[in-house]
Amino acid sequence: MTEISALGEFGLIKRLTQDIKTTNNATLYGVGDDCAVLHYPDSEVLVTTDMLMEGVHFDLTYIDMYHLGFKSAQVNISDVFAMNGTPRQLIVSLALSKRFKVEDLEEFYAGLRAACEQWKVDIVGGDTTSSYTGLAVSITCIGEAPRSEIVYRNGAKDTDLICVSGDLGAAYMGLQLLEREKTVYYQQVDEAKKKNDQLALQQLKAFQPDFAGKEYLLQRQLRPEARGDIIKRLREANIKPTAMMDISDGLSSELLHICDQSNCGCRVFEKNIPIDYQTAVMAEEMNMNVTTCAMNGGEDYELLFTVPIGDHAKIEKMEGVKLIGHITKPEFGKQLVARDGSEFEITAQGWNPLQAK
Amino acid sequence: MTEISALGEFGLIKRLTQDIKTTNNATLYGVGDDCAVLHYPDSEVLVTTDMLMEGVHFDLTYIDMYHLGFKSAQVNISDVFAMNGTPRQLIVSLALSKRFKVEDLEEFYAGLRAACEQWKVDIVGGDTTSSYTGLAVSITCIGEAPRSEIVYRNGAKDTDLICVSGDLGAAYMGLQLLEREKTVYYQQVDEAKKKNDQLALQQLKAFQPDFAGKEYLLQRQLRPEARGDIIKRLREANIKPTAMMDISDGLSSELLHICDQSNCGCRVFEKNIPIDYQTAVMAEEMNMNVTTCAMNGGEDYELLFTVPIGDHAKIEKMEGVKLIGHITKPEFGKQLVARDGSEFEITAQGWNPLQAK
Repeated sequence: MTEISALGEFGLIKRLTQDIKTTNNATLYGVGDDCAVLHYPDSEVLVTTDMLMEGVHFDLTYIDMYHLGFKSAQVNISDVFAMNGTPRQLIVSLALSKRFKVEDLEEFYAGLRAACEQWKVDIVGGDTTSSYTGLAVSITCIGEAPRSEIVYRNGAKDTDLICVSGDLGAAYMGLQLLEREKTVYYQQVDEAKKKNDQLALQQLKAFQPDFAGKEYLLQRQLRPEARGDIIKRLREANIKPTAMMDISDGLSSELLHICDQSNCGCRVFEKNIPIDYQTAVMAEEMNMNVTTCAMNGGEDYELLFTVPIGDHAKIEKMEGVKLIGHITKPEFGKQLVARDGSEFEITAQGWNPLQAK
Repeated sequence: MTEISALGEFGLIKRLTQDIKTTNNATLYGVGDDCAVLHYPDSEVLVTTDMLMEGVHFDLTYIDMYHLGFKSAQVNISDVFAMNGTPRQLIVSLALSKRFKVEDLEEFYAGLRAACEQWKVDIVGGDTTSSYTGLAVSITCIGEAPRSEIVYRNGAKDTDLICVSGDLGAAYMGLQLLEREKTVYYQQVDEAKKKNDQLALQQLKAFQPDFAGKEYLLQRQLRPEARGDIIKRLREANIKPTAMMDISDGLSSELLHICDQSNCGCRVFEKNIPIDYQTAVMAEEMNMNVTTCAMNGGEDYELLFTVPIGDHAKIEKMEGVKLIGHITKPEFGKQLVARDGSEFEITAQGWNPLQAK
């Protein structure tokens, strides 16, 4: 493994960025000057940013550097899709403590680049610096959309249909699974230490967490994909959502954002919330309510959007999209209708990193 | 003081951003959705980013939250000026440990906004999250320039004149001064503790560092200003630099960047390097070579640029700009000509946060 100090700041940046080619017409100049230079004469520029801190947003005992890079890019790209835009460029800043080696960074960049290649996004710059503790990642993604196509959170209207892509709660259950296996591992280590069982300690180095039959949950937690495919499908079907956002903090939290900003209420039906079989099984095992997981578990990066009721027929047959309820007048509040017909006020218990500690 | 958890993530963002008004025509939509929306039909978009980590880039025993916000914005705005652009928008991400209160963040934002107001830059978004240790700041600044006006680092030509704005080394001497006073303070505390002198310890709470006659050095370290005034002057004089960058890592390091990217050499004259009187006095006191401080001290945020020799008369009489040398063919190397006529190869000993630890 190569110490970063062996390359220095500029050597490191050179090594990480030397193979990066830019492919978008909108990218005039990428890495290597005070600024990147972008060209957007015919559409509006969309900009979003996210900061990920080790220990708060990710745990490197669960996720490797490749997947961290991949996920960091996807969650930012997801924000551009959530405006009905096309992602074009990405800028990445990293702050690293001494325990990270050049090869770790190369892994991170490999993941970042895999995600960017999937969506034809150019890496155009960033900053690489040091940190006293752990790893900090800050990503800015830039995209474009014609002004008339941009979808904000504030356009939902009474009677609009509420839709979500994919299924919900799986990323959260994936995190529970990873934490459970981590706990199991440390319990076994503790026990072996207590008994001073050197053989067991040796064997634990080859500890294999039990993920059998739960691969989908892991994939959803470690390798989320922005739903550009859904954006494409909506365009092909000639549907422009009235409001849209991506689900990063949990469905409940995002529904409240759309209702607050659109000044409306909503009625969402529990029975319609899309949940994968593995999510349901895992919730059962963990003695958790699967609907609560789907409503409040974060990091799904699915799209939540509303469409006019006139698009009902089109949206109903769209693959990968589920109709979960409808928008109401604000005085009807934000309601979850349970399977038995009882109603609950939706409150945000979303994943909140500011309360995580 | 208000705990951040009392407001929650969304409450905090609301409190920090509620008074922010956007004033640029290029800002269509700011804080509050998945992305900010910007409008740049007639010029290219410039994007730059910087990450600042507590303990590496700043020490909160020296700098208060207001000045940290101010400086964070200025150093990013400086990168847009360094492309000969006009800064327009800024996005800020913060990761905070528990010791930070709402009022600390308000101070940071007040400084950030003061810098943005100075340059008519809109704050259009960001991310606020938590950190296990200390404070991390990531800022992205967006600006614009007509394509024909953009100045890269790679356009310097043989015989071009090399210019710098302002004076150099003062920010670095300001940092030495702050560190010296911090050392003096802790020495006195240690001594008082050793003697168990409770009165002295009590009095040390009112310790006043000795900054008399060195206010300029402090200002340069704690309250740098991007040189938009120089950019304006150059435009008014109808001068377009052939290459330009801002001096963040030290003059030596930046000269090497321009020479490498422009494939040329340079001859810089020690006697021409602009140094303030306070910088010289402080270097003398600290037993440091003042030219070394000016060449290798970081954080000046002055502009380093080259102009065609035909602009000699115009540039010579420009206020706040000093001619320090000229560009040569690459085979002549990168030379510093000392006062006695001897020549030294310029090497980068620049301020490198990756080697700071």
